[in-house]
Amino acid sequence: MELTVYLAGQIHDDWRREIKSKADEKQLPLTFVGPQENHARSDDIGENILGEQPGQVARDDAASSINNFRTRVLLNKADAVIAYFGESYKQWNTAMDAGAAVQAGRPLILIRPESLVHPLKELSNQADVTVETIDQAVEVLSYIYE
Amino acid sequence: MELTVYLAGQIHDDWRREIKSKADEKQLPLTFVGPQENHARSDDIGENILGEQPGQVARDDAASSINNFRTRVLLNKADAVIAYFGESYKQWNTAMDAGAAVQAGRPLILIRPESLVHPLKELSNQADVTVETIDQAVEVLSYIYE
Amino acid sequence: MELTVYLAGQIHDDWRREIKSKADEKQLPLTFVGPQENHARSDDIGENILGEQPGQVARDDAASSINNFRTRVLLNKADAVIAYFGESYKQWNTAMDAGAAVQAGRPLILIRPESLVHPLKELSNQADVTVETIDQAVEVLSYIYE
Amino acid sequence: MELTVYLAGQIHDDWRREIKSKADEKQLPLTFVGPQENHARSDDIGENILGEQPGQVARDDAASSINNFRTRVLLNKADAVIAYFGESYKQWNTAMDAGAAVQAGRPLILIRPESLVHPLKELSNQADVTVETIDQAVEVLSYIYE
Amino acid sequence: MELTVYLAGQIHDDWRREIKSKADEKQLPLTFVGPQENHARSDDIGENILGEQPGQVARDDAASSINNFRTRVLLNKADAVIAYFGESYKQWNTAMDAGAAVQAGRPLILIRPESLVHPLKELSNQADVTVETIDQAVEVLSYIYE
Amino acid sequence: MELTVYLAGQIHDDWRREIKSKADEKQLPLTFVGPQENHARSDDIGENILGEQPGQVARDDAASSINNFRTRVLLNKADAVIAYFGESYKQWNTAMDAGAAVQAGRPLILIRPESLVHPLKELSNQADVTVETIDQAVEVLSYIYE
Amino acid sequence: MELTVYLAGQIHDDWRREIKSKADEKQLPLTFVGPQENHARSDDIGENILGEQPGQVARDDAASSINNFRTRVLLNKADAVIAYFGESYKQWNTAMDAGAAVQAGRPLILIRPESLVHPLKELSNQADVTVETIDQAVEVLSYIYE
Amino acid sequence: MELTVYLAGQIHDDWRREIKSKADEKQLPLTFVGPQENHARSDDIGENILGEQPGQVARDDAASSINNFRTRVLLNKADAVIAYFGESYKQWNTAMDAGAAVQAGRPLILIRPESLVHPLKELSNQADVTVETIDQAVEVLSYIYE
Repeated sequence: MELTVYLAGQIHDDWRREIKSKADEKQLPLTFVGPQENHARSDDIGENILGEQPGQVARDDAASSINNFRTRVLLNKADAVIAYFGESYKQWNTAMDAGAAVQAGRPLILIRPESLVHPLKELSNQADVTVETIDQAVEVLSYIYE
Repeated sequence: MELTVYLAGQIHDDWRREIKSKADEKQLPLTFVGPQENHARSDDIGENILGEQPGQVARDDAASSINNFRTRVLLNKADAVIAYFGESYKQWNTAMDAGAAVQAGRPLILIRPESLVHPLKELSNQADVTVETIDQAVEVLSYIYE
Repeated sequence: MELTVYLAGQIHDDWRREIKSKADEKQLPLTFVGPQENHARSDDIGENILGEQPGQVARDDAASSINNFRTRVLLNKADAVIAYFGESYKQWNTAMDAGAAVQAGRPLILIRPESLVHPLKELSNQADVTVETIDQAVEVLSYIYE
Repeated sequence: MELTVYLAGQIHDDWRREIKSKADEKQLPLTFVGPQENHARSDDIGENILGEQPGQVARDDAASSINNFRTRVLLNKADAVIAYFGESYKQWNTAMDAGAAVQAGRPLILIRPESLVHPLKELSNQADVTVETIDQAVEVLSYIYE
Repeated sequence: MELTVYLAGQIHDDWRREIKSKADEKQLPLTFVGPQENHARSDDIGENILGEQPGQVARDDAASSINNFRTRVLLNKADAVIAYFGESYKQWNTAMDAGAAVQAGRPLILIRPESLVHPLKELSNQADVTVETIDQAVEVLSYIYE
Repeated sequence: MELTVYLAGQIHDDWRREIKSKADEKQLPLTFVGPQENHARSDDIGENILGEQPGQVARDDAASSINNFRTRVLLNKADAVIAYFGESYKQWNTAMDAGAAVQAGRPLILIRPESLVHPLKELSNQADVTVETIDQAVEVLSYIYE
Repeated sequence: MELTVYLAGQIHDDWRREIKSKADEKQLPLTFVGPQENHARSDDIGENILGEQPGQVARDDAASSINNFRTRVLLNKADAVIAYFGESYKQWNTAMDAGAAVQAGRPLILIRPESLVHPLKELSNQADVTVETIDQAVEVLSYIYE
Repeated sequence: MELTVYLAGQIHDDWRREIKSKADEKQLPLTFVGPQENHARSDDIGENILGEQPGQVARDDAASSINNFRTRVLLNKADAVIAYFGESYKQWNTAMDAGAAVQAGRPLILIRPESLVHPLKELSNQADVTVETIDQAVEVLSYIYE
């Protein structure tokens, strides 16, 4: 049974590559999708496609509309969602996507370090599973196929 | 036509009182609901009701389960949601509630300072209306009744 | 049994007043809701609340976000929708609201003049009832209570 | 990941061919669907299948019932919708389909010329992305696969 | 707790009056709704409101569009549905409404005589409760309040 | 694009074979599903699987539970539904399935002879398309692929 | 804000009265609903209304159809659900109702003694809040109104 | 037509193997999914993945979160559900999954021995089909393909 997993979270390091590579090692029949991971491309995509915008607010709105379009198309196709939180960055998109996933009935795995137990307690409680590491998240996905 | 509005956001200052008082001045037939605003009570509610828990993780999970129960009951009754972001605090609950509100088809007003335009650009783009002040949010609610 | 009816359509003349007055004459327990009918206010609402915007596109987007917020809140409360088309104006909002109403399972009455039979044939076919006059639409609403 | 895109809009010129050809150039794994593009066939389909109808209203209703059936089957299969507006024609079907797509949770790209910014402002605000050209719309679709 | 019950079934005799009167005797806080019970009015309603139609098919379609509009508005408000079958009449509307009620998650009571056990076996199996008499149906409604 | 079509209707003659054969001739990529067409098997299936039942009512209920299970599984997979009415038989299952299909958002084609225009007028008005012959229904399906 | 709470659980002792009385003491604006609590009436209701049935299976099926009808009507009206488990009885209805409540998006409080932690661990994990006593459940309900 | 069937029930003996083997014999194009059947693994999975937990309650909650995640992912993919009850074990998960399946619109087959007719009467009444043996359940699945 092939499943699609949406990877919500910051795009500043290559945590998604790590998940994919570990799932590949286990030969899990999973397709991973997620947001644009090239940060500059993600910020510039509005002006890249629509041309120069009148000011920063318009520039950000243009980019976010295209990023959100991508996210909605892919989230609709996902059988499960992983939301990954680290100690850096605001990560409001991650929390917003996690809230949307829960509301849409998509099973959700939360990855967060022990240091974030308290500020993420409500989100953790809404997630189906909370883990601390990428390895643990991959083991949870792998458990579906045991 | 009476409407119910859920006020998502941090509970460290009394921004909700300001919204309610300004809506009262305009005599809008609105009922405002939201999370527990007493921060200590919100953090302690798990142990207050269930007794001492074995460690901080269990304590946080107990509190969050009761806070989430309250939020879900009230969000289900809401005709619209306001999500309020400031420059302090992590505010992941606010983002999570905003994502859930959009997914559940609840019209959403985002209040955020100009300084947060960029990090909140995707959330702003998903909201129905984005404003910068509480006064503006109340004017948007008031506009429903014109 | 009290019902709420959303009145979708242009805001250039006072057709809504005519519906309301005829429903009042029949003493139907109906609440009518709809968009802002003051055209200038509807176009200006973005800048009225949010202040001057950088150019016409931003100005229109600000206004439309607040108009859409109002429409979504009220459409969610409606038990039925009337979409009114005349021979003037583009009326794309009316068609968009009609499509949304059908998709959301809200029973829909279409009012359109005979001259628009052909261009509105698909919309008419999706509506629950198509009539040509306001009097006929009020009679359809009245029939619910016979 | 293969996706299906519904192309809503007028059927008087061959804009759909342009989208398809540009998506082919980029080798995007997209299937495009849409309404009957042969205008005469679209208008005649009722009588073509059901035989002569008693008058123009019945003839139009017969055609539209079959056109709507086709649209509903295909819209149900679509992962995203493009609504294309130009300066000619009434395009009420396009607006109706766009409203239905938004309500049904289908991500929506709006293509419209700058001249239509004002009359399409509410529809643009409801769309996930608004662009001005077919090239831009194809770039948005292509961005899903980056 | 006040509840609304939609009464689906033929409109040739006054079985609805019997249900209402028996529920009144038991002082149940129920509101009963249903289709137009004046058969001539139900058949004529299209032409009564829209004027003479070009032939019997158009006349029937006009009437049914208004009857269906009424049914959909009222079925949306119903907390439960009673479908009543007797030995006369085709009663296809009753079966259609029953199928719609089950699909929409409205609890359904089927009333049918013993003679119709076999032809109504699939519909009976889909209903929540099947009874043979109006008295029994009223007792089932009354049981909600014990 | 492959589509699945559920064929609701009586099982006393081989109208389904005719539809399938005509769709095959046109090489339409359609999968047709429907109820058990062997009438004796359909009536006996309860006792065939569960053993002798205590009386006719229990026997019918056992059969119908298995027939309904099959119908629900297959209707869930269908992209469109055809409901076929003829002049014989009670056909309440057909009407119930048609009502369920409309409520579940499945596009519906009704086939009925001219003699049934009046008694099926509400069902016809709820269907997406109404035709009189199997040939016409196949042409409507074929039109999706033009 | 008035809320309705469905009380799922065994009907062998008067735990519901205890909840109601404690909520009354706190003057909470709650309406409690639930199954028939008179055990004999609950078992006999099928034959009480429908007359003698042919054997125990039919007798049980008749009773359960009427009990389920009542449960579905009331669960549809509930803003929250409490599922109460004790150490006696099979309590499969309680578990079934809890599963249905979670799936239907009704916030759920589970009450269960410490001795049942292990066998109820999956159900507890799906519930919004798990407590051990009736007092604690009432405190959770009361917390909504703080 | 390939279908996926979720097998809910206890994991103490190999009843699932029996279903799979009998479906294989009949060459039915079915994929069976279900919970982790290794009981120790199911109980230990929380600590296996997340490491030692502080006490039995936390240990159980960790395991159940991962078991529930698996169940939700697989139940979302299922076209039908079989719930199997025997005379041993508490089987509350089975009842909870059955309630969820019914609420989610998944057709449900209940397998239960005659000795459990009375305590499972409400669950049986909600199931689409109730049988007593695995052979009968497989025959019901096979009937879909006749």
